[in-house]
Amino acid sequence: MERIEHHASFSGRQEVWQHTSRSTGCTMKFGIYLPPAALAGERCPVLYWLSGLTCTEQNFITKAGAQRHAAAHDLIVVAPDTSPRGANIANDAAYDLGQGAGFYVDATETPWAAHFQMQTYVADELPALIEQHFPASAARGIFGHSMGGHGALVTALRHPGRYRSVSAFSPIVAPSQVPWGQKALAAYLGNRPDVWKAWDATALIATAHERLPLLIDQGDADEFLQQHLRPELLLAACQEVGYPLELRMQPGYDHSYYFIASFIGDHFAHHAKTLSASA
Amino acid sequence: MERIEHHASFSGRQEVWQHTSRSTGCTMKFGIYLPPAALAGERCPVLYWLSGLTCTEQNFITKAGAQRHAAAHDLIVVAPDTSPRGANIANDAAYDLGQGAGFYVDATETPWAAHFQMQTYVADELPALIEQHFPASAARGIFGHSMGGHGALVTALRHPGRYRSVSAFSPIVAPSQVPWGQKALAAYLGNRPDVWKAWDATALIATAHERLPLLIDQGDADEFLQQHLRPELLLAACQEVGYPLELRMQPGYDHSYYFIASFIGDHFAHHAKTLSASA
Repeated sequence: MERIEHHASFSGRQEVWQHTSRSTGCTMKFGIYLPPAALAGERCPVLYWLSGLTCTEQNFITKAGAQRHAAAHDLIVVAPDTSPRGANIANDAAYDLGQGAGFYVDATETPWAAHFQMQTYVADELPALIEQHFPASAARGIFGHSMGGHGALVTALRHPGRYRSVSAFSPIVAPSQVPWGQKALAAYLGNRPDVWKAWDATALIATAHERLPLLIDQGDADEFLQQHLRPELLLAACQEVGYPLELRMQPGYDHSYYFIASFIGDHFAHHAKTLSASA
Repeated sequence: MERIEHHASFSGRQEVWQHTSRSTGCTMKFGIYLPPAALAGERCPVLYWLSGLTCTEQNFITKAGAQRHAAAHDLIVVAPDTSPRGANIANDAAYDLGQGAGFYVDATETPWAAHFQMQTYVADELPALIEQHFPASAARGIFGHSMGGHGALVTALRHPGRYRSVSAFSPIVAPSQVPWGQKALAAYLGNRPDVWKAWDATALIATAHERLPLLIDQGDADEFLQQHLRPELLLAACQEVGYPLELRMQPGYDHSYYFIASFIGDHFAHHAKTLSASA
């Protein structure tokens, strides 16, 4: 564990750390925002952010404007990188496969399985590390954007009891039915659509026991809406089983961090409702 | 004039434009945030942001978290690039001279004078363009960071009556007395310390007729504080002539956009006090 960046921010501190990960077998970086209460030694709930395609740990911490809200709600915010990285790690020339595109699954196929164990990393290894080294309580929330929105939904749905709150911006809600998802799931998990369902939020909703209320914001001017995101599929699945979903279509908004920044305050309020009460 | 980016943001719109500039003789880009009131056709005051060394028009619009405040105060915010740019334009291998380092002066020396006319660009050409093409009132404020803090102070002090409010983050307050400034002023204006004084906020304060209250935030963990920024020189000059300066030393903060984002709400409130009343 080595701290490679630290910046005072909204009376708290934004840090970046790197460490050797057991699950991915390489050096991983993550951003962590410590609110004033955490700097004062108080144990704070932790909100995990999962980023989208091509992102590193930097995008969210520099562009989302999250720190002011994290400070106001006394929440730690952890933002990991989106994949294993390195010259000796499998990659692909496309932006939507390989490094920067881990899809938060545990790969089973060659050449990906050796390092692309992002689900184990974000759901198991990283929270254990955070709760050991920082003033973190055991109250966890999770959210993310696009590929990371998929990651947040799937990670929460696969681990009942582990997270107390979940939300997403412009998530890939049904990866087994859209091009981005089909390409990634086929590469990482093989051409086995039955297996993909265990990594598909729309499919997982049908059998979910735990019912964490979902908040989803989606811009209606998002260039990926029709082909890759398709929130109507999740909406239908939730209606089918009575799963609590608040899907907000935001008129005129696109897929960018300008969209995220505009509504992230509402997501912090959503998470704080549960996390701050249970800290 | 060509719009090359547009994103919904806090119920307004963040845009990026490029145009052929008469003063710099090349294509220039600027960011412009149009608050909801401007989109509804109301003429809004304009706050100009000048960025620091190495920045383009992108840094401020992606990292400062300004849009939420601009929307709340009904202010247009314009953020130009920091220099002329292009393969056929003079440059230097160092980060603190040439492209990305225009210092907001009008250069008189070879090879810079042909394009490096940034003072004329930011003080004359750009405001005229903005007031012609956007729903902008004639009420103007100006602020900036580091080299751009110097730019904001000097531009306001050199043009009494043109701006109604001014502020800065971590400004180079006395370029004629510090290495960054001496290097740039010598290159752009020649080795003429008497001429440099017309581009030095600390020197200009001594003879200022107009007294716009200055708000300056400076992190005390800023890595450039002792060598390049030296706010105590401006403080002394202001005290000498009774110029109104609020200099806030912010404990633990560095030179980054994390610092800017933490306090930019206060700067918007400072500018809105004058701009919104006079719109």
